[in-house]
Amino acid sequence: MAEEVLLFSTWFSIYGRRVEMALKLKGIEYKFIEEDLTNKSPSLLKYNPVHKKVPVLVHNGKPVAESLVILEYIDETWKNHPILPKHPYERANTRFWAKFIDEKCWPAILQACWGKDQKEREKAAEELSKLLQFLENELKGKRFFGGETIGLLDIAANTIGYWLGVFEEAAGVSELLTREKFPKLFNWVNEWLSVSAIKENLPPRDKHVAFMRLNGQGFWNDYNASK
Amino acid sequence: MAEEVLLFSTWFSIYGRRVEMALKLKGIEYKFIEEDLTNKSPSLLKYNPVHKKVPVLVHNGKPVAESLVILEYIDETWKNHPILPKHPYERANTRFWAKFIDEKCWPAILQACWGKDQKEREKAAEELSKLLQFLENELKGKRFFGGETIGLLDIAANTIGYWLGVFEEAAGVSELLTREKFPKLFNWVNEWLSVSAIKENLPPRDKHVAFMRLNGQGFWNDYNASK
Repeated sequence: MAEEVLLFSTWFSIYGRRVEMALKLKGIEYKFIEEDLTNKSPSLLKYNPVHKKVPVLVHNGKPVAESLVILEYIDETWKNHPILPKHPYERANTRFWAKFIDEKCWPAILQACWGKDQKEREKAAEELSKLLQFLENELKGKRFFGGETIGLLDIAANTIGYWLGVFEEAAGVSELLTREKFPKLFNWVNEWLSVSAIKENLPPRDKHVAFMRLNGQGFWNDYNASK
Repeated sequence: MAEEVLLFSTWFSIYGRRVEMALKLKGIEYKFIEEDLTNKSPSLLKYNPVHKKVPVLVHNGKPVAESLVILEYIDETWKNHPILPKHPYERANTRFWAKFIDEKCWPAILQACWGKDQKEREKAAEELSKLLQFLENELKGKRFFGGETIGLLDIAANTIGYWLGVFEEAAGVSELLTREKFPKLFNWVNEWLSVSAIKENLPPRDKHVAFMRLNGQGFWNDYNASK
C-alpha cells in the first residue's frame, strides 16, 4: 500500500517549514495542505484538537503535532539520512538546545523586533545576545550543529538561520546577529542558507518580509496572549 | 570502571522526582545532591549555566538538564525496563502529552491554586478541567498511560498523580480532580500511587503540604516572572 503523508501548515509557519525540511532531506513525498489560520479547516481541528495549530503531519491517517515531536517521529519512521545523532548524550544535547531555541530564543527575537517600546526592545535584544552566545559556544569547530551534515538542531535553529534576518528587516531593527559578535553563528547562517535542500524550501523572502511588516506586531501580541 | 551518576535536585522538585523515579525503575544507583535553591552551588551553576535550575543528571562527568530530556537520556542509556514505547507513533504521542502536561496543565494547576483572586482561580480551574478531559480520553481502557506498565508519560503525569493533590490541600481549593468528572484519571491516580517504586519515592506528604502552604504563592509568582 502506498504511504499517505499529509502536512497541514501554512507558507509562513516557522514550525511547518521545519517539518518540510526533514521530509525533503529524507526524500519523502507528501501533500502540502495550506491552512488559512483565520478560518481553520475542520480537518485541522479534528487532527489537532488540543492546540488547533499547524503544523500537523498525518501519516496514513494518524496525526502527529508539535514540530519537534514531528521531527523525531520522522526520524524514527524513515531511517535514511538520520537527523538525530546516534549517541544518547549527543541526542540529549540536541533536544536540550532545540527546546532552548523554542522557549528562550523565539520570544526574545519577537520581543526585540516588536516589543512595545524602544526600551523593551533593547532589553530583549540584550537578552537575545546572551542566548545567542550559548549557541555560538555550542557550534565550537563544527560546520553545522549536527557536525558535518545537517541535523535536527540545525533545522530547529532555522529560527535564527533564516527567520531572525527576515524579522530584523521587517521590523527595521539594527543587526541582532553580527559577524563581529557571533563569528561562528554568522558563518553557520551562511553555510545553512547555502544548502540547496534548505534554501529551496524557504518562503519567498520579499513576500515574507512584507507579510511580517504587516503582521509582526500581531505575532508578538498572540505569543503573549497564548502564555 | 564504575559508573558515576549524580543527581542535583531538591526534595520538593517536581521535575527532580521524575528523574529519581526513572532511575529507581531501572535500578540505577545514583548519588542525590540536595541543592539549596536560595543559594545554588557552584557545581549546579557549572552544570546548568543556561537555566541554573534543578534537576541536572551528571553521568560520568557529563551533565544533562531538563527533566523530559533527562528521561529520554536515561531510557537510551540504560535499556532495561524501557519507559518509552517502541513504535514511533506511540513514542510521538508520549512526547506530545508530556509536553502538554508541562506547558498547559502545570500553569493551570498553579493558577487554580494560587491565582491572584477567586475569579482568576475559578477561570484557571475551568481551563484545567478542559485539559484534564484530554488526558481522561487518552487513558481509554488502559491501566497506565504506558499501558500495563509505567512509562515516561506516567512519570510526567505525576504532576497530576501526586502534585495536584498536595497543591489542592495546601491552597485549600475544592477538588479539581473528582471521581465523578474524571473516573479514568481518578482511577489512574490511585493505581499510580499504589506502585511501590512510586509511593516510596515521593516527598513526605505532610511536610510537602506545609511547605507549599508557605511557598505556593511564590511558586506561581516565580512561574509568571520566568515567562
